[in-house]
Amino acid sequence: MTAEANVGVVGLAAMGASLARNLARHGNKVAVFNRHYSRTEKLIAEHGDEGQFFPAKTMAEFVDSLKKPRTAIIMVKAGEPTDDMINQLADLMEPGDIIVDAGNAHFPDTIRREKAIAARGMHFVGCGVSGGEEGALLGPSMMPGGTEESWKTLKPIFESIAAKAEGEPCVTHIGENGAGHFVKMVHNGIEYSDMQLISESYDLMRRALGMTPAEIGDVFEEWNKTELESYLIEITAEVLHQVDKKTGKPLVDVIVDHAGMKGTGTWTVQSALDLAVPVTGIAEAVFARGLSGQTELRAEAQKQDFEGPSGVVPMAEEDKIAFINDIREALYASKIVAYAQGFNEITEAAKVYDWKIDLAAVARIWRGGCIIRAKFLNRISEAFESGEANVSLLFAPYFKDAIETAERSWRRVVSRAISFGIPVPVFASSLEYFDGLRSPRLPAALIQGQRDYFGAHTYQRVDMPGAFHTLWAEDGRPEIEA
Amino acid sequence: MTAEANVGVVGLAAMGASLARNLARHGNKVAVFNRHYSRTEKLIAEHGDEGQFFPAKTMAEFVDSLKKPRTAIIMVKAGEPTDDMINQLADLMEPGDIIVDAGNAHFPDTIRREKAIAARGMHFVGCGVSGGEEGALLGPSMMPGGTEESWKTLKPIFESIAAKAEGEPCVTHIGENGAGHFVKMVHNGIEYSDMQLISESYDLMRRALGMTPAEIGDVFEEWNKTELESYLIEITAEVLHQVDKKTGKPLVDVIVDHAGMKGTGTWTVQSALDLAVPVTGIAEAVFARGLSGQTELRAEAQKQDFEGPSGVVPMAEEDKIAFINDIREALYASKIVAYAQGFNEITEAAKVYDWKIDLAAVARIWRGGCIIRAKFLNRISEAFESGEANVSLLFAPYFKDAIETAERSWRRVVSRAISFGIPVPVFASSLEYFDGLRSPRLPAALIQGQRDYFGAHTYQRVDMPGAFHTLWAEDGRPEIEA
Repeated sequence: MTAEANVGVVGLAAMGASLARNLARHGNKVAVFNRHYSRTEKLIAEHGDEGQFFPAKTMAEFVDSLKKPRTAIIMVKAGEPTDDMINQLADLMEPGDIIVDAGNAHFPDTIRREKAIAARGMHFVGCGVSGGEEGALLGPSMMPGGTEESWKTLKPIFESIAAKAEGEPCVTHIGENGAGHFVKMVHNGIEYSDMQLISESYDLMRRALGMTPAEIGDVFEEWNKTELESYLIEITAEVLHQVDKKTGKPLVDVIVDHAGMKGTGTWTVQSALDLAVPVTGIAEAVFARGLSGQTELRAEAQKQDFEGPSGVVPMAEEDKIAFINDIREALYASKIVAYAQGFNEITEAAKVYDWKIDLAAVARIWRGGCIIRAKFLNRISEAFESGEANVSLLFAPYFKDAIETAERSWRRVVSRAISFGIPVPVFASSLEYFDGLRSPRLPAALIQGQRDYFGAHTYQRVDMPGAFHTLWAEDGRPEIEA
Repeated sequence: MTAEANVGVVGLAAMGASLARNLARHGNKVAVFNRHYSRTEKLIAEHGDEGQFFPAKTMAEFVDSLKKPRTAIIMVKAGEPTDDMINQLADLMEPGDIIVDAGNAHFPDTIRREKAIAARGMHFVGCGVSGGEEGALLGPSMMPGGTEESWKTLKPIFESIAAKAEGEPCVTHIGENGAGHFVKMVHNGIEYSDMQLISESYDLMRRALGMTPAEIGDVFEEWNKTELESYLIEITAEVLHQVDKKTGKPLVDVIVDHAGMKGTGTWTVQSALDLAVPVTGIAEAVFARGLSGQTELRAEAQKQDFEGPSGVVPMAEEDKIAFINDIREALYASKIVAYAQGFNEITEAAKVYDWKIDLAAVARIWRGGCIIRAKFLNRISEAFESGEANVSLLFAPYFKDAIETAERSWRRVVSRAISFGIPVPVFASSLEYFDGLRSPRLPAALIQGQRDYFGAHTYQRVDMPGAFHTLWAEDGRPEIEA
């Protein structure tokens, strides 16, 4: 076996096989290995003519078929299988070689693995890959972490297979060690809130306005011609237009209303909590999925038949049109808040984990290939490039203007949803965040007073430095400097 | 040194010293040890006459002064100091002896420590203690985990020092290993939402109605005679009546509006996320504190001067009174939701970690000593005792009725807060949760459709079992069983 391949893929299930094919189609010489050789044979039999593959029966053969510095991309199940593969590879590879984990690893695992592999003189790159199976085959959005040095080798390979947005490949070096997986995690968190906001919009049109899924699909199709233009809006229209073959009903009506999740949304919120960065929109979206899956609780709630508004609200046609327009504005404003919060989380993590992350570049590589790809990421990218969004995306003039334009509609939508009894947790939470952010004074001062009362936690004063404690139990309650 | 003490306390800072005094005052013979002996001397000099103390200069002396089975309560800083103390003690103690960690440890640490100490034949009891320094001295609410066997020894000791509520000691054996610290953690999470709800009520009266802190303090004093009667409402009235000695202004106005936090709220939400149990009220409360502390973000937001409503809303006196009444109802309803969510988290954790937790007993021991002590915990306790609250506290007739009575006020308060531009994230989030829970169908079905579209995640059908996938890219889009 001569070392001819410039890149290899370990793990040839749906995602790995698609990635290997994408690599081969773009002129890479691709070593491929799978624990069970049958999968490797199947790939070669079905797609061997798409480019140059170097099938290996053993891990040793696989490593031998790679040119130095060897570059191996692992695409196996997160967790233990990933650790196993990394160790097997590292035992066969040499200093300077590169191991890429392209699965959805949790970033602390990536940090740990990078440290261990770096200690052996090799490069370990945790790389977020978004776009699902189709993205892996036709062009994903790629978020590699790891060393600058490894990026030199990976750049041409990844740029050859990444999605293109306005001609630019949707891949950039995010930052050291776990930065790539962190940014991919937040990407997924934002995806949760995007999907929930779309669902809340749908629910309002469905239950308050009494529209059919197909009619609502038409609305999303129209919205896809506005500033909301995005992959998720596009596929929402398609899902809502889909008719179930078995029953002739709208497909959405035969689907069980229990939204699954796989962990990245949860991690996004948990990490934000560690960083004390509010990501209220993402949190409410994750909890909304959680509630949808509490089947016993929900069934019992139905039996309880709680009092409260529900059902179609009679509305004149022009009011209906105005309300739909309000929903579009509210969706846009809430979406901007979710992105602002997500980017704040990345900014804070970059400080804590010592990553240098170019947020404008992050927004650029999300324009294509990934699930949250959207037209307005161009505006986000510009806002970070100019420095206008440094503190918050909401402060960049384009987005500030968008929020101010939407503001009244946004308030109307949440207020009316409340009067209709239709849940809009992410619409509401995003608006609450905006009003909290706007507030010159927050009632947090009262909380500090309470904390000092029962726990002697002390407080700061607005008029002088220091930490103060009121002797609440004493007569006259003197204040002391703590 | 003869072994005369029936209990010992390690760590004599504020909390530990108070606990040791409480023990001695109630007839216990209390061994005391502190890393620096001066603190031990100070305790004996100042409070030695309050009971029988056995001061020890070394850990070995401390252990020797304890009768078997030896019972040592550690009250030191969470984290490494706790591990150090546990190991030092365990090295000197014998099988059957009991080590109690009365600090605010994170429950996974408690589970880990219990396992290690149990393997050495000793008992390790993680015990939540609520009530601050005053509670530790005069009677805290205590939430011990650990083995049933250790509880036999600890019961009389803990019952002698715990707060009493309607004559009953506020302590019960919560469950094995980490159960006590878990329940204490959720207690603190609920405390976060209680405090935030009070602050949102205050903020509405202050900023929308233009009332002074003292006037609002009067309102809280009145509320403390209603179903809201609780320690936090009581001290809120006192904090709001407090005048700053230096400036003559209301103290709350000179306190910096940045609410601190120490981790238990964060842990509560992170654990709920792991368990996929929505605790939206607690999450929004934690994030509200987070936002209050983002000083750069908030300062920049002020410079931006966002459009939107703010300031006092002119209102006739009778409307004002009606609105204050609405706020009280909204506060009560939101509070019930936060407790329902918190108890759901405990229920789910008990399943996952294999704890047998008596929720009625938990509610009972929260009636006294702890920060969230409140009259309505009697009702909560009854609801769990009767089994009515098994699935959710909201389904117990008493609370269902309370929510339904409050419902219209609750909707009015959130809608009006939104129109006033005053943030009420926990009011809003609790109401959204209630409307989500009430919904016969959630738009989660659309999310499942989207997930199947872009990720082939499959969906379930309402009319037959199995997992299904629509071939979205195909003509006619057939459905297949996945």
